[in-house]
Amino acid sequence: MARIITFGEIMLRLSPPGYLRFEQARSFDALYGGGEANVALSLAQFGHDAAFVTRLPANAIGDSCRNELRQYGVDTSLIVRGGSRLGIYYCEKGASVRPSKVVYDRAGSAIATASREDFDWDHILRDADWFHFTGITPALGDNVAAIALDAIRTARDKGIPVSCDLNYRKNLWSPEKAGTVMAGLMPYVDVLIANEEDADKVFGIRAAETDISHGNLSTEGYRKVAATLIERFGFRSVAITLRESYSASENGWSAILCTARTCHVSRRYVVHIVDRVGGGDSFGAGLIHGTLTGMGDAQALEFAVAASALKQTIEGDFNIISADEVSRLAAGDASGRVQR
Amino acid sequence: MARIITFGEIMLRLSPPGYLRFEQARSFDALYGGGEANVALSLAQFGHDAAFVTRLPANAIGDSCRNELRQYGVDTSLIVRGGSRLGIYYCEKGASVRPSKVVYDRAGSAIATASREDFDWDHILRDADWFHFTGITPALGDNVAAIALDAIRTARDKGIPVSCDLNYRKNLWSPEKAGTVMAGLMPYVDVLIANEEDADKVFGIRAAETDISHGNLSTEGYRKVAATLIERFGFRSVAITLRESYSASENGWSAILCTARTCHVSRRYVVHIVDRVGGGDSFGAGLIHGTLTGMGDAQALEFAVAASALKQTIEGDFNIISADEVSRLAAGDASGRVQR
Amino acid sequence: MARIITFGEIMLRLSPPGYLRFEQARSFDALYGGGEANVALSLAQFGHDAAFVTRLPANAIGDSCRNELRQYGVDTSLIVRGGSRLGIYYCEKGASVRPSKVVYDRAGSAIATASREDFDWDHILRDADWFHFTGITPALGDNVAAIALDAIRTARDKGIPVSCDLNYRKNLWSPEKAGTVMAGLMPYVDVLIANEEDADKVFGIRAAETDISHGNLSTEGYRKVAATLIERFGFRSVAITLRESYSASENGWSAILCTARTCHVSRRYVVHIVDRVGGGDSFGAGLIHGTLTGMGDAQALEFAVAASALKQTIEGDFNIISADEVSRLAAGDASGRVQR
Amino acid sequence: MARIITFGEIMLRLSPPGYLRFEQARSFDALYGGGEANVALSLAQFGHDAAFVTRLPANAIGDSCRNELRQYGVDTSLIVRGGSRLGIYYCEKGASVRPSKVVYDRAGSAIATASREDFDWDHILRDADWFHFTGITPALGDNVAAIALDAIRTARDKGIPVSCDLNYRKNLWSPEKAGTVMAGLMPYVDVLIANEEDADKVFGIRAAETDISHGNLSTEGYRKVAATLIERFGFRSVAITLRESYSASENGWSAILCTARTCHVSRRYVVHIVDRVGGGDSFGAGLIHGTLTGMGDAQALEFAVAASALKQTIEGDFNIISADEVSRLAAGDASGRVQR
Amino acid sequence: MARIITFGEIMLRLSPPGYLRFEQARSFDALYGGGEANVALSLAQFGHDAAFVTRLPANAIGDSCRNELRQYGVDTSLIVRGGSRLGIYYCEKGASVRPSKVVYDRAGSAIATASREDFDWDHILRDADWFHFTGITPALGDNVAAIALDAIRTARDKGIPVSCDLNYRKNLWSPEKAGTVMAGLMPYVDVLIANEEDADKVFGIRAAETDISHGNLSTEGYRKVAATLIERFGFRSVAITLRESYSASENGWSAILCTARTCHVSRRYVVHIVDRVGGGDSFGAGLIHGTLTGMGDAQALEFAVAASALKQTIEGDFNIISADEVSRLAAGDASGRVQR
Amino acid sequence: MARIITFGEIMLRLSPPGYLRFEQARSFDALYGGGEANVALSLAQFGHDAAFVTRLPANAIGDSCRNELRQYGVDTSLIVRGGSRLGIYYCEKGASVRPSKVVYDRAGSAIATASREDFDWDHILRDADWFHFTGITPALGDNVAAIALDAIRTARDKGIPVSCDLNYRKNLWSPEKAGTVMAGLMPYVDVLIANEEDADKVFGIRAAETDISHGNLSTEGYRKVAATLIERFGFRSVAITLRESYSASENGWSAILCTARTCHVSRRYVVHIVDRVGGGDSFGAGLIHGTLTGMGDAQALEFAVAASALKQTIEGDFNIISADEVSRLAAGDASGRVQR
Repeated sequence: MARIITFGEIMLRLSPPGYLRFEQARSFDALYGGGEANVALSLAQFGHDAAFVTRLPANAIGDSCRNELRQYGVDTSLIVRGGSRLGIYYCEKGASVRPSKVVYDRAGSAIATASREDFDWDHILRDADWFHFTGITPALGDNVAAIALDAIRTARDKGIPVSCDLNYRKNLWSPEKAGTVMAGLMPYVDVLIANEEDADKVFGIRAAETDISHGNLSTEGYRKVAATLIERFGFRSVAITLRESYSASENGWSAILCTARTCHVSRRYVVHIVDRVGGGDSFGAGLIHGTLTGMGDAQALEFAVAASALKQTIEGDFNIISADEVSRLAAGDASGRVQR
Repeated sequence: MARIITFGEIMLRLSPPGYLRFEQARSFDALYGGGEANVALSLAQFGHDAAFVTRLPANAIGDSCRNELRQYGVDTSLIVRGGSRLGIYYCEKGASVRPSKVVYDRAGSAIATASREDFDWDHILRDADWFHFTGITPALGDNVAAIALDAIRTARDKGIPVSCDLNYRKNLWSPEKAGTVMAGLMPYVDVLIANEEDADKVFGIRAAETDISHGNLSTEGYRKVAATLIERFGFRSVAITLRESYSASENGWSAILCTARTCHVSRRYVVHIVDRVGGGDSFGAGLIHGTLTGMGDAQALEFAVAASALKQTIEGDFNIISADEVSRLAAGDASGRVQR
Repeated sequence: MARIITFGEIMLRLSPPGYLRFEQARSFDALYGGGEANVALSLAQFGHDAAFVTRLPANAIGDSCRNELRQYGVDTSLIVRGGSRLGIYYCEKGASVRPSKVVYDRAGSAIATASREDFDWDHILRDADWFHFTGITPALGDNVAAIALDAIRTARDKGIPVSCDLNYRKNLWSPEKAGTVMAGLMPYVDVLIANEEDADKVFGIRAAETDISHGNLSTEGYRKVAATLIERFGFRSVAITLRESYSASENGWSAILCTARTCHVSRRYVVHIVDRVGGGDSFGAGLIHGTLTGMGDAQALEFAVAASALKQTIEGDFNIISADEVSRLAAGDASGRVQR
Repeated sequence: MARIITFGEIMLRLSPPGYLRFEQARSFDALYGGGEANVALSLAQFGHDAAFVTRLPANAIGDSCRNELRQYGVDTSLIVRGGSRLGIYYCEKGASVRPSKVVYDRAGSAIATASREDFDWDHILRDADWFHFTGITPALGDNVAAIALDAIRTARDKGIPVSCDLNYRKNLWSPEKAGTVMAGLMPYVDVLIANEEDADKVFGIRAAETDISHGNLSTEGYRKVAATLIERFGFRSVAITLRESYSASENGWSAILCTARTCHVSRRYVVHIVDRVGGGDSFGAGLIHGTLTGMGDAQALEFAVAASALKQTIEGDFNIISADEVSRLAAGDASGRVQR
Repeated sequence: MARIITFGEIMLRLSPPGYLRFEQARSFDALYGGGEANVALSLAQFGHDAAFVTRLPANAIGDSCRNELRQYGVDTSLIVRGGSRLGIYYCEKGASVRPSKVVYDRAGSAIATASREDFDWDHILRDADWFHFTGITPALGDNVAAIALDAIRTARDKGIPVSCDLNYRKNLWSPEKAGTVMAGLMPYVDVLIANEEDADKVFGIRAAETDISHGNLSTEGYRKVAATLIERFGFRSVAITLRESYSASENGWSAILCTARTCHVSRRYVVHIVDRVGGGDSFGAGLIHGTLTGMGDAQALEFAVAASALKQTIEGDFNIISADEVSRLAAGDASGRVQR
Repeated sequence: MARIITFGEIMLRLSPPGYLRFEQARSFDALYGGGEANVALSLAQFGHDAAFVTRLPANAIGDSCRNELRQYGVDTSLIVRGGSRLGIYYCEKGASVRPSKVVYDRAGSAIATASREDFDWDHILRDADWFHFTGITPALGDNVAAIALDAIRTARDKGIPVSCDLNYRKNLWSPEKAGTVMAGLMPYVDVLIANEEDADKVFGIRAAETDISHGNLSTEGYRKVAATLIERFGFRSVAITLRESYSASENGWSAILCTARTCHVSRRYVVHIVDRVGGGDSFGAGLIHGTLTGMGDAQALEFAVAASALKQTIEGDFNIISADEVSRLAAGDASGRVQR
């Protein structure tokens, strides 16, 4: 299998049990998650040699976070230790007409206070077959954006393909700042991943006649978004996930994958949601897996969409699922019959 | 914000975890709830100065009940302490074709054994802007009915608007007894709230051609019910909630609000239910909030229906939700997208 | 009420809490279940004198298993103690597009290593009104198949009706072996129960033009399956349950019941699933109950289908539900309104 | 083994998890317990055919209570169903210098509202080898005292030995009332059991120079108490348990057993307490077991003390322990080494 | 009762369940605590009108923290809302030879980033009978030290007694810095509270010949520490708690209370610890209660020591116990017998 | 740090929560443990590169077991996958006078059915600095004994030191069989570890005048046992752990370490036990760590005893503790004061 490196922030996720609201909780489920960590973990579950690179505090909380990743087979040997805290996000699960709610407490985290000297990319990327990051990472601060730039420049020098999930976060930066910084990083990116809102928020590229708040997504509009992105930045391919939010409990889920020449539209799943966090990340991991294992674009897209549909039936950020299980769904068996 | 007083019984609610049946439970979630307490709590969450009046035993169980209300901002300083026990209701959550099941153990509770001397309504209602009670309260016994009458007479004297939720409980009294007692209280009520069955059960006023057991509710029929009620008792307005029970897990939910002159029909929600108990109470609280904050009838109705749709996605009797969150749903955003 | 004897294996069922995957679980819910035990328990809940016969290890785990059955009213006095272990099955609950997953660890169990001398059927079946077993029991080994044959021969001698649920398990034996062994037992069976796949797997009798993986089941095809079975083995009646698997969370559920002369098709339920394990067993128990209490075929079928629809809303293998509750659903009340 | 009948009240016990105070609890462990039920259950664990007689409400809470007893092998077939509620006691576990705390909510229970006609003692006591009750039972009301008197008169008529645990409860009656009522029952009692305070509270028979609040108990004083009791009421034997309360977490535990001729003093255990409720009941069960299996007084006493020391290391009211395990401790092995 | 104001930081406390280590935890119990909040809460439990003043973020986590205090009767109406986060401390419970472990994550909290303008002390302290703070508060930063100085100057102006618990925290500041800042605040303090190490750490005043790590504490040495403190700062009284740490599970616990003229030495408890956090705070609250209710010094000291011994048998930071319960222990009943 | 290889069986451990008995449990904590796995994990926590070698089934249960080890830093890359099941042991925690209870269900496990061809020791032991196994491994069957012999012969060839913990298990083999098989392995062992009973059970070498059931252990006697062992088998050193079982909750704990020339006796700890399983394994890991890091015998012994005293305060088989934490206790700080 392949060697993949991802870089970014991982946070402690504190979630009330079940469908309790924050005010009702007397305990929090202690989970961990972050865009690039989620991708690395999903790839490790698919059998790859995937390493996640970040900076964690040298205390028991940082150890616990590393252990959780290690448990699921992520290579954690490249993680830098230092800084004073692990970022936190509190996550309350919604249901039906009540949306999920996230409260961030991530300022001052070990990775947000890292410096360029903390990471030796030449060493980190030796033997790598792929590098992945998201738009959250440069949003953590100019220092982290600079580290990300170091990483992808090194990857480019070594001929390592780079994927990026745009992942716009309004709490971290403005659309303007995001647009400027991300535009500077895009030249080093081969495969761009985005959700139905990101391209608009970051680059002002909007799908015409689409009102996402009502769950009606026009595939046609997003083909044009992809085409514009490819034209502007020269990506090898652009994938856009399309979530139709009927309620907090039920979503439509599909995606498109476009190159300069063609566009594939995936099957569409209606998912009864267990935990939607990490859906986009699991899509990215599926796409990378498909690409690295030589699937064609259409097949890789179906694998990625099936992987991320399955993720949304699994608790936590992490897509604890094997490539075989994903392939079975991608091949059409969505009946949910017991596997004995 | 306004000062609201509600009066009635609050019980300890013992619920098996998740979807376990009573016979499977080795522990009970310890919650509290009761019609008027639920209304006060919801109004406190909306930012009002809401006090709940009752009688609680002077022991650790009574303390725990008071603390729970206090936690969510209810003014508990007017609660009388005495009597020997807190009433209990055991509540098993249904799912799909299996209905929820309630076993009452409320006889002999502190409030059911209270006397008129326990409550000084002139003192309790000083500074009040609204008084609310339900049909459960007079059903607890002639002594409690007399206390309720004291309360609403005092409210009338002070010019405080009174709302009443009919809330017929067949375990507490017969339709005949209910009809007689409630008819004596109605002259003091300004705003009447009822569900799709109450008016028939208590006053024999039935919506024509409606078979609620099959989930088909005729709005037209209920307009006539409201008109009859207004005509008979002179209410300023009558609100009727309309539950379409497809199953224990999925319900349609809407309401109408009628005055002598007009009738408003609300939007209809299909709710995937987390906990339906307290749905009617949260509707009442929403209606009172809308009225007290100067919304027109149509807007107040939409606020009330949205509030009570949200309640049914929240565990327990209490509607732990802010006015902002309700307004967002009432304004049309039911997509359930994550709020960050 | 009647005296029913069932015979087979019961296992410890270890399930991750909620929707967690095996790899995420730090604890397992400890449940018990097995086809014939489930039937006996359901019949005990309906008020019958139902005994389950098996062999359990003489240790604390065997005691706990016996206690669990005893708690729900099953007569456990005929259980033989001996052998070295209780079989186990690990069961992970699926959701939406993710199927449930079962890992068996049942080899070498006390019942699988039992011998014919362990069971005195003449004694066990004294006073019995009915005997029930499933196709899992003879699949445990030739020794257990021989014990089962002893049982049904004795039943035949005593004039006790025998029901059998085909219940093919591919992990235990091949279709060929199953076909041969089961064909030897069928002459002693009066009522045969099967799901939509069993007759094909065990006897090669397939419903034409039915693709169960897409959830479209042709009633017509299954009538012919039933007719063929009756013709071949001379059963008094054949019941076939028809599961339409839309997803792991939502299934269609109905059944047919055929005799040599007529075929009844049941109402069809769409069930939002809490736990689908034991669905077939609860159908069997419902059918036996209907027959023993003198319902006609059509009514017995509706009772059985309602019972098994309810089972799928209850956690665990066991159908903890009374005959009254089943009758209410069979009579048409599927609204899920709270029962107070 | 022997057939033992016990009669009295069983309650739902609601306990905060672990060492939480009532005010901190968001759930209660749902246990069941009551003096005579505890004795029956312990005897069933020792292998006897033990039946518990009471009256339980005919609802799901009553069913759950019966099931719990049935699970542990108690014969529940003689339980009468009726009345409106199961009595409750809330029980908060103390630790170290903080005492355990019990809040009773038992008024109006099914057994407290039973009538003499509910119980056919001639039928109930057929085949019985022993009858047991406690002083709590007649304290429930004159009606229940009358039922108890019916029971022991019938037992006397049939020549069935009767044991009684004095078990004074100050919340149920005054010392004066207790003294009068119990004095009327004592003539039918063969074996009296009491703790270090009961004889004083009920009959005013006090051990000289003993200050139980400081944990110093004079064996000599209690021999005299026993002698006085035997003299006054003609018991065959009197057993007195001696608890030395150093703290809520650590107690000394021993007992004496006296007849008209001799007095045996048991070994003394220092127990690190898991749950002390039911300690006296498990002593009674041990003594009955010892007597019924033909142990001499000294050995029966040691068995009873060991049984009750073990009880206090087990959660809940029930002494879930086998006669073998008790015998091992009684024989001197208190090392706590792992049993493999 | 009296009106008491306390001021400082409250944090979210995340604790692994039971005795799990951080690395083993998959969930955290969500508690709240902080020196001055703990004191206010304990005083509210004793029946006083106690308000806690702090700054909390205006989000759901801040709301939950406020609610928790409100639940236990603390007046939270003076809490300022603003800032970006609630401070956190992770707390792992030790056992026997394994010490408890605390990881702080409190930097940047709402209170640590507050400014003097946030608090109007003239308004806050109107009607106050007592003001309390600890040495942790000025350690949060020069801005917070300035706010504390504002508070105690205002208290002095209004003639409100001030108590201070030295509470040295080495993670927040150095002994030198602490000594300088605290010396500037001491002139406004009437009652000083310290543990066996604080005076040494902050002011370099050491008890001669005491080796606290071996659990042998010389009362004589601490009398001299108190005398030196009184001499240097002119306190009305000085109380020093004396913890003898035999292990993480068992501690000796006592205290001395000295004025310029006399010194009282309390009874000494050996406590089997449930949760030792908040022991010092509950002592302070007990002392304030004793003083405000007119106990003499000796009695107030015994009340305070008993209160804090009890605290250590209660989970969490908060001393959920009534004045009656404390008085019972202070009066000598440490037997732990069940209170019914 | 060093590279250590351990080889043996790891099992799923199913434990009732808290102090519940098996019959009371409705869930099991799912833990994993086994002598050699425990040693590898402890060494990984101390910072070593420790690999555990075994055979695990290629299913989700085997994956979960591997993940658990991987989480705590054990190198699991040498684990062979195959066979049909993971062995299980059910473990009920005792308290006070009630002993812990273990029920094994380990027959037919993947490792017990392994063959010599499954393990390439030349490959496995490349770069290894130490090899460790226990007497449980050869007890699993002649095939596994042969594999163990292959391992230690290869180690001898490569000059890798070998340690063995005798660990006699009466459920797996007789003393005679154990004596014969172990005698054949001892020539390859450099460091022998045993508890106070093993040498007697396996080799018939008994400490004179020692009655372990009463918790009085003569150090002198064990020195002679060690001397005899060294004489007979030529070990470089022999360590014997000495457990004084006062009760299931409190044990004395110490050890001796002898070479041909000298004997060191460790400090003795009295441990309040959280979980005593794995105590001996953590001692072994401590001794290996001490030896590999160049401590002298006395210091290594103290480190090992401190490590294993700490283990008994930690839930589960695994000693989740750092070398620093152990050193702090070994250096004398047993006060249990909070570490901030």
